[in-house]
Amino acid sequence: MAETEEIKPVDSAAENLQQVLILLNKHKLVEELVHRQDMPRHDLVETLVHKQNLTELHHKLDQMHPADVAYILEALPRDQRLIVWDLVKAERDGEILLEVSDAVREMLIENMDRAELLAAAESLDTEEIADLAPDLPQDVVQDVLGSLDEQNRARLQSALSYDEETVGALMDFDMVMIRADITLEVVLRYLRRLGELPDHTDKLFVVDKNNALHGVLSINKLLVQDPDAVVGAMMETDVTVFHPEDDAASAAQAFERYDLVTAPVVDADNRLIGRISVDAVLDYIREESDSDMLSLAGLREEEDLFASVWKAAKNRWMWLGVNLVTAFIASRVIGVFEGSIEKLVALAALMPIVAGIGGNSGNQTGTLIVRALALGQITSNNARRLISKEFSISMLNGLVFGGVVGALAFFLYSNVHLGLVIWAAVALNLLLAAFVGIVIPLAMHKVGRDPAEGLSVLLTAITDSGGFFIFLGLATLFLV
Amino acid sequence: MAETEEIKPVDSAAENLQQVLILLNKHKLVEELVHRQDMPRHDLVETLVHKQNLTELHHKLDQMHPADVAYILEALPRDQRLIVWDLVKAERDGEILLEVSDAVREMLIENMDRAELLAAAESLDTEEIADLAPDLPQDVVQDVLGSLDEQNRARLQSALSYDEETVGALMDFDMVMIRADITLEVVLRYLRRLGELPDHTDKLFVVDKNNALHGVLSINKLLVQDPDAVVGAMMETDVTVFHPEDDAASAAQAFERYDLVTAPVVDADNRLIGRISVDAVLDYIREESDSDMLSLAGLREEEDLFASVWKAAKNRWMWLGVNLVTAFIASRVIGVFEGSIEKLVALAALMPIVAGIGGNSGNQTGTLIVRALALGQITSNNARRLISKEFSISMLNGLVFGGVVGALAFFLYSNVHLGLVIWAAVALNLLLAAFVGIVIPLAMHKVGRDPAEGLSVLLTAITDSGGFFIFLGLATLFLV
Repeated sequence: MAETEEIKPVDSAAENLQQVLILLNKHKLVEELVHRQDMPRHDLVETLVHKQNLTELHHKLDQMHPADVAYILEALPRDQRLIVWDLVKAERDGEILLEVSDAVREMLIENMDRAELLAAAESLDTEEIADLAPDLPQDVVQDVLGSLDEQNRARLQSALSYDEETVGALMDFDMVMIRADITLEVVLRYLRRLGELPDHTDKLFVVDKNNALHGVLSINKLLVQDPDAVVGAMMETDVTVFHPEDDAASAAQAFERYDLVTAPVVDADNRLIGRISVDAVLDYIREESDSDMLSLAGLREEEDLFASVWKAAKNRWMWLGVNLVTAFIASRVIGVFEGSIEKLVALAALMPIVAGIGGNSGNQTGTLIVRALALGQITSNNARRLISKEFSISMLNGLVFGGVVGALAFFLYSNVHLGLVIWAAVALNLLLAAFVGIVIPLAMHKVGRDPAEGLSVLLTAITDSGGFFIFLGLATLFLV
Repeated sequence: MAETEEIKPVDSAAENLQQVLILLNKHKLVEELVHRQDMPRHDLVETLVHKQNLTELHHKLDQMHPADVAYILEALPRDQRLIVWDLVKAERDGEILLEVSDAVREMLIENMDRAELLAAAESLDTEEIADLAPDLPQDVVQDVLGSLDEQNRARLQSALSYDEETVGALMDFDMVMIRADITLEVVLRYLRRLGELPDHTDKLFVVDKNNALHGVLSINKLLVQDPDAVVGAMMETDVTVFHPEDDAASAAQAFERYDLVTAPVVDADNRLIGRISVDAVLDYIREESDSDMLSLAGLREEEDLFASVWKAAKNRWMWLGVNLVTAFIASRVIGVFEGSIEKLVALAALMPIVAGIGGNSGNQTGTLIVRALALGQITSNNARRLISKEFSISMLNGLVFGGVVGALAFFLYSNVHLGLVIWAAVALNLLLAAFVGIVIPLAMHKVGRDPAEGLSVLLTAITDSGGFFIFLGLATLFLV
């Protein structure tokens, strides 16, 4: 590969982690030697080896992208994490804090003093400070606000005022603005004077003296069109624009649909106030799918992989507690029918099947509804068709799977009536499941709540208690 | 808003959908009138109104972005979907087919003849045809291959050969290549001669005559640096490069970490063979999180919102079937202890609590492990710490929640021993849950399978059967 010697592919994040771990382990080994031997005359040599390892580590960290340092911090146990954090150059603290997860950020910030935090915040852009601010002590935020010039203070204050789920929270202020009446040649000279363009600049924003947005000029056009052409003639005027109070999720969908790299954000008077870029969208999408996954699994928030047992346990209590309450309710439903179970103990063995299959089917329906709501595919025109489709499917599945369960029950207990009762119970519980799988997300959406949140827990609670009630109720009526 | 008249914000997707629905409903109304009245002399007038509505709809659709047409097709019931699909200009069919979901694509392709499919495919780029090919009839794919020139045929064949989960499947061929020994001035002239740059061009790829990659020149640098500078001096050589067989998920992570817009793909000899752009990454991430969500809810694949009941029901059978099997096993576990339940019927009412809380806790552990594996945060160095942390949490939670359940059981049934047995059972089941929540994902990962797939079903199956067995077993030993 002689001809490839010029290019230096970046080390992968995993390779970096491996190298850091080796250095940390060497460091630890030396430390343990020092402690174990307790021989003062060896001190000097060991301190030197020790220092050499840390210097190598220091050097290694300096070469790494902040996101890679963040990744390594996430993967390290707390003691090693703090060693690495101390080795990171102070001026990079801010960038790295932006990249780590909330849980790790909280831990690192706890271990920094006020001066360090202030320095870290001041190394960042306004919109980056806004991302960090919720985790910073209140007095540090005040100090940072005091250190900014008027424009940036106003920007930071408005950025802090936007809800996390809005376009305002994703917005940055790195836009290049030009006028419509100049030529491309002038634009090219202007850019050259700027000396550096913001990351992800794929278009320039064409504004008038009131900052009102008139169009965008793509960099591609700027490069290929005649330099004597006027911006106003070359710019596009049918632009996807956002407002700071727009829903972040729909902005993300627009980026995906229209393959955007950046897009302008304007206020109610069409004045340009910022832009969104695809890297913020990518981070947003990842965080959303992450938090969906965590809440589905019953975790309250992101958890540091090496959080203390106590802290991690508390993170899991809320959903375990909810689960306990719903399980207790289901248990009381069964309690009502203890007399029937005593007479026909097969009911106890069969009842979890009715409950379980109802929960599964209800989650299928609920997930499809949540997804269709998220994509804006449910309108008043098609809702009724959708509902009747889901009920038909549940009816069909209820007959089929109820039939299978009924046959199994009959085979096991040689009791035709038991088989028929469980068949009916499965079919009815699947109808209940379809009903709650449709109604809960639609109702949550109607009142402006996230239809996915807690859906699975609520659904399963209803199909469990409902399944027990239907099955044991029918059995009490017809069997015992 | 006088100063805003120049800019035309793009209609949002939802507004588009609303307008299309209104036109479709007008169309339907006229059709119904024609059918109902059966008055030949009115025919002419009605046909005219009818035509006018469709013309308006046609016009509306022509103005819309392919992704918006796709979105509308998704949200329409099948009959209306086909009306809209017929109105779409034939030359846009290909682009739109790329944007719709697999389920809707399948339905649309079923309703196209061979000539239409061929025309649609031929309007697309090579990598786009590769995305479409799995859904096309085999003979159409052969015809398309035959119609391509040699370079594109080779590209399509290699694109078709890559696994869906690799960088090769995300790659396109829209790259602009330059030599290292020319000046920026020459590059600028070259680009102007090209007349148009590929979408998302944020960097040019610097290659030698063997196509070996030597570096990349960012468009930003090209714009701001001295035009007399030589490319070789201005290009970056520490580049994030990918190979076509690399894992798509880790490429997506790299895009997120390093805020990339495009990145080169090279072969084993460092020859440039394509590029990845952020729009492909965004689509990939969305599809991944979507299919994770669907499979978690027990849906085999993406489902057309208006699929036929029969088709939709079949989509759900696999997981319902799996659920039935696991529920049946749990039921047999209970069956073994029917004698104990007959003697102490409270066991039947309490056993779902033990099973349920175990499932919840196991899913918490499993999700954290899956997430850490996906982020590459689990190494041989930290695995043991992680495992002991999870066991400690389960032990703590088992004592706390087991205690609560035990107290409730004692309170309800005034039976101290029952309270103690259920306390022990909850604690033991949480340990079992932690064990399987760790072992299953790690084992799946070790054998190269997706650790998330089916995890929740498998985990719940084990904690259900295990919970019943532990609780009823302990009760049989100590209570009855």
